[in-house]
Amino acid sequence: MKTARITLTLSALLFSSLAFADDITDLSAATNMVWLVTASALVFLMQAGFALLESGMSRSKNSLNVVMKNYMDVCIGTLIFWALGYGLMFGSNPSGLIGTDLFLINDSDPTTYGTLLFQTMFAATAVTIASGAMAERTRFDAYLVGAVIITAAIYPIFGSWVWNADGWLAKMGFIDFAGSTVVHSVGAWCALAGVIILGPRLGRFDKSGKPRELRGHSLTLVALGGFILWFGWFGFNGGSTLSASVDIGLINLNTQLAAAAGACASMLLAVLMRKPILLSDTINGSLAGLVAITAGCASMLPLYAVVTGGIGGIICMLGSHAMLKIRLDDVVGAVSVHGFAGAWGTLAAGMFFTGNMFDGKLITVQLIGIGACFIWTFSCALIMYFVIDIFMGLRAPAQHEQRGLDLSEHAEIGYPEFNSGDIAYTADRASNMDLQR
Amino acid sequence: MKTARITLTLSALLFSSLAFADDITDLSAATNMVWLVTASALVFLMQAGFALLESGMSRSKNSLNVVMKNYMDVCIGTLIFWALGYGLMFGSNPSGLIGTDLFLINDSDPTTYGTLLFQTMFAATAVTIASGAMAERTRFDAYLVGAVIITAAIYPIFGSWVWNADGWLAKMGFIDFAGSTVVHSVGAWCALAGVIILGPRLGRFDKSGKPRELRGHSLTLVALGGFILWFGWFGFNGGSTLSASVDIGLINLNTQLAAAAGACASMLLAVLMRKPILLSDTINGSLAGLVAITAGCASMLPLYAVVTGGIGGIICMLGSHAMLKIRLDDVVGAVSVHGFAGAWGTLAAGMFFTGNMFDGKLITVQLIGIGACFIWTFSCALIMYFVIDIFMGLRAPAQHEQRGLDLSEHAEIGYPEFNSGDIAYTADRASNMDLQR
Amino acid sequence: MKTARITLTLSALLFSSLAFADDITDLSAATNMVWLVTASALVFLMQAGFALLESGMSRSKNSLNVVMKNYMDVCIGTLIFWALGYGLMFGSNPSGLIGTDLFLINDSDPTTYGTLLFQTMFAATAVTIASGAMAERTRFDAYLVGAVIITAAIYPIFGSWVWNADGWLAKMGFIDFAGSTVVHSVGAWCALAGVIILGPRLGRFDKSGKPRELRGHSLTLVALGGFILWFGWFGFNGGSTLSASVDIGLINLNTQLAAAAGACASMLLAVLMRKPILLSDTINGSLAGLVAITAGCASMLPLYAVVTGGIGGIICMLGSHAMLKIRLDDVVGAVSVHGFAGAWGTLAAGMFFTGNMFDGKLITVQLIGIGACFIWTFSCALIMYFVIDIFMGLRAPAQHEQRGLDLSEHAEIGYPEFNSGDIAYTADRASNMDLQR
Repeated sequence: MKTARITLTLSALLFSSLAFADDITDLSAATNMVWLVTASALVFLMQAGFALLESGMSRSKNSLNVVMKNYMDVCIGTLIFWALGYGLMFGSNPSGLIGTDLFLINDSDPTTYGTLLFQTMFAATAVTIASGAMAERTRFDAYLVGAVIITAAIYPIFGSWVWNADGWLAKMGFIDFAGSTVVHSVGAWCALAGVIILGPRLGRFDKSGKPRELRGHSLTLVALGGFILWFGWFGFNGGSTLSASVDIGLINLNTQLAAAAGACASMLLAVLMRKPILLSDTINGSLAGLVAITAGCASMLPLYAVVTGGIGGIICMLGSHAMLKIRLDDVVGAVSVHGFAGAWGTLAAGMFFTGNMFDGKLITVQLIGIGACFIWTFSCALIMYFVIDIFMGLRAPAQHEQRGLDLSEHAEIGYPEFNSGDIAYTADRASNMDLQR
Repeated sequence: MKTARITLTLSALLFSSLAFADDITDLSAATNMVWLVTASALVFLMQAGFALLESGMSRSKNSLNVVMKNYMDVCIGTLIFWALGYGLMFGSNPSGLIGTDLFLINDSDPTTYGTLLFQTMFAATAVTIASGAMAERTRFDAYLVGAVIITAAIYPIFGSWVWNADGWLAKMGFIDFAGSTVVHSVGAWCALAGVIILGPRLGRFDKSGKPRELRGHSLTLVALGGFILWFGWFGFNGGSTLSASVDIGLINLNTQLAAAAGACASMLLAVLMRKPILLSDTINGSLAGLVAITAGCASMLPLYAVVTGGIGGIICMLGSHAMLKIRLDDVVGAVSVHGFAGAWGTLAAGMFFTGNMFDGKLITVQLIGIGACFIWTFSCALIMYFVIDIFMGLRAPAQHEQRGLDLSEHAEIGYPEFNSGDIAYTADRASNMDLQR
Repeated sequence: MKTARITLTLSALLFSSLAFADDITDLSAATNMVWLVTASALVFLMQAGFALLESGMSRSKNSLNVVMKNYMDVCIGTLIFWALGYGLMFGSNPSGLIGTDLFLINDSDPTTYGTLLFQTMFAATAVTIASGAMAERTRFDAYLVGAVIITAAIYPIFGSWVWNADGWLAKMGFIDFAGSTVVHSVGAWCALAGVIILGPRLGRFDKSGKPRELRGHSLTLVALGGFILWFGWFGFNGGSTLSASVDIGLINLNTQLAAAAGACASMLLAVLMRKPILLSDTINGSLAGLVAITAGCASMLPLYAVVTGGIGGIICMLGSHAMLKIRLDDVVGAVSVHGFAGAWGTLAAGMFFTGNMFDGKLITVQLIGIGACFIWTFSCALIMYFVIDIFMGLRAPAQHEQRGLDLSEHAEIGYPEFNSGDIAYTADRASNMDLQR
């Protein structure tokens, strides 16, 4: 009798035990999804940050055109990445060089849906970086063709080398947690290629090659863009766990510290160089800190996050000056922020790896990954923009550039009531004179 | 002896088993609340999106007035919905037509608090849609009276038919997961009634009825508004699970795909029609995609989300042209975005229901729901604005409209330093001429 | 045999039971971290809200300078609070007066990382409140020195009295759940001291002491700032649970109701006083409601949240008038919003404490806390700004103030194309005349 009762109780316990296991598994899956979706939304909003930053740093006559490029980057990018990019990046990858399935995901499981959503936001981030560098002189349709190719091939193929478990860089042990290289450097090297093919804006350099300021039309929008990007980065880095985890605390603390250190370092540099503390430099400094910490945010201690971010801010500022020296006109400093600071951050992720600091082998792997990214992305993008330029014309006609791309490409203007009057006229006249020389 | 020990162990296990059950239940409740509250915050921010979109599409002399309408929609709406609306919508509903308790919720349980918070944000969204359509010519106090009535009666009573488990449309099996009809169409049909009662802005149509552009003052604000609305929609649709769930992955992936498809479709349409690709059209296209997917985001596959969103974008653009043809002046295109695309999306939710595609019965139910919403909302709102117009005057005096509602209603102007000078003067002069005819 | 089998099953159950316990603990920790990190991100974005609100309420010639102060508050504040502030606030606190360890947190546990991140955002909020009050006339470097001292000492030392479990006010039972006093009043009393030391802006009061309007340059930015602050507050109050909890529902519902009531009350007051309904008053009304509910949002019922918020809005509006009466020039009304409403809210948290309403003892404790905050913060800040003024000069030279701090401090202007032309000139001329008197 007693044994029977015990057996009954045991059976009940076994069932309830199985039920708990199910409950915990379900709850855990739901919690992971909540974080993945929240982080996706934060990363999405970074597009607004880019749009404001880039628009604010452009003159008002192009303010609308650059925003439209950002907006369409997300829209076209979302569809292309769903159709093609995600599969190339995360599909079965026997060669280690490219994914081969998971295209046009339709009837699938919740985790795949969530991951596709999150990765779509990353793809859109990578592709939109170029729009700022190439602002104020790129044709809208030609730009979009480039954006399609980046989303469909350049970004996901490199991504498959690192974030696909079978990728050749992944197998080497290359560390790039949230994409200093995979996302930011890819975007930046595309931007660099675009800037080279395009040439500088009219009036950006005088005859002797000395740069002239072409001031952005709204620095409050630039600042708001900076704040929004920083905000979104908590999803960008924190979400790269792809699941709910206590590790997010360290990741986002490092993110915050690096951003702060980047801005402070660039401000200090300005003070030391006895230059004015510019808002655009300060914000780019913090963004460079954010880009730099992105690779190693999950695997270094806070102290090194401060170092990584601070050096990122300095590299960004020096990089911007170097770009001007060689007469490359990057309107928002995207190459410095996302490229130079991204490369540095990827190296730092190797140098400051908790438990394995300054390991020569790891640092070598990081350098290989940084180099591979530059060679692949820059070559592809250079060829791509070159071909686009031949067949479609990458650069807007000079008259359109002078009049502003808003009017010539969209038949709209950003601020129909706030006519800049004399000032714009003067600026145009200056450009005219450049043309006539 | 042994049996005694076994019984003891069993008792301990039973206790710990009960404790686990409690722990899991508590943790699950906390997780649900985290998501509900996060989603509520995202939906709240949509108000900022509406405010920017509507203000940016208005002339600067009314930029402040429209923002104030949005801001007060949330503030008054929150109090009214707490006092009255929530009960009418979610209270005991024996008739299937209206809720009868849960007014002025005070001492209640956590889930009710959380649900009230989330639903408050939805009510504020529905009510604020009209403000954009009716911008630039509606008296502030008259507008607010309308907003109060919508929040207190028109919206919650229709809502009780669908989202109250005992509602008559709910019992028929009407599908509107996150509110293409309940929220967006209700808002839009109120807007339509308002636009009809108000008549077009001075100078919007010339003598022959041909529309004239009255350009919004800041297209960067419009774009930022669009980004913020899209961002908030991840809470709007994802949060409509009302709890943490793996389903949010599909829901928000569908949301993203439909928004992207809406913008791309409206851009393609512009290209095919050989018209310029306008920023406002593109953003409205993506919003129409978002509105359209709102009803069926939880019950269709990604491929159909793309179709639903894309068609939503096209319907929106054609709808806007149709509105102009019949000389209805909807400043931001709210009727097309929220009404036409909302009706389409509700139909699509029936057509593309996973596992039951193109079921005639389901489609009929959807059509009944769409029709019921139009008849109820449009009739109520038409009567309401008509009565308001008689007793208070809905439309601002022509002189106020010319001078701008910012100055006449609030004794402030939005941009005291950026005087639009000649341009505004010219615009006013044109309006003056209209008046004198 | 049977017993052996039973024992085996029992052992298996025991093991799985332990495993469940571990799983639940891990999942619970991960869930807590997800909420803490989400809330931290929301609080971070409040900085953008402050920046827009303060910049929009300033004239365009200072729009950039005030944003830079906000941006550097976060950046410097983050580093200083990590190095020093967090330890002073949350370190071992045997005296009840100041924390003594946890400086420069590096190798620690996830919960500490997450808590440091969240508290960093709070510190940055407290310190940035002063920037708006002191806008348009404060030197950039002198301001930053003040910000460093507030973050390093004034804020964390007071904080240790309340939010450190061993603090003397904590031990008395002082209630300040999310910081009406700890964060907002501290910020506001610093602002008050700054405003007193600085004196009013040139041209703010005429010879007879009558205030003259110096209108902010962009009220749409002000409104956007208000929306963003409100949005961030859901993390500010909701996150102060420091963990996932069903309580967040009530907390954020109260937050929403109080904000709405604050705006409605200030609007009603304007109507009753037959004054125009100003956007800035309305937004400050809702912010005052938010500040007021911050102390008691977790411990009062919704009805009292409405009362607390509504009275907060009225106090704020009356307080702003009182400040002008005594010729204190607080550009954004920070002292009224964060100080007066914060003190009221802290008192209300005692008065409306669920289950212990209108308890004399509790109310006394609250009054002691409010008083202690004012005495400590105001004295420290007054001395601090006085000393800074002597050694560095707190106030910008009159010529810089007239020309605008953007140009004089940063060699940039916010809107290089939208020259305000005559209007700005006129304003400057008025100031010039003031100077010459």
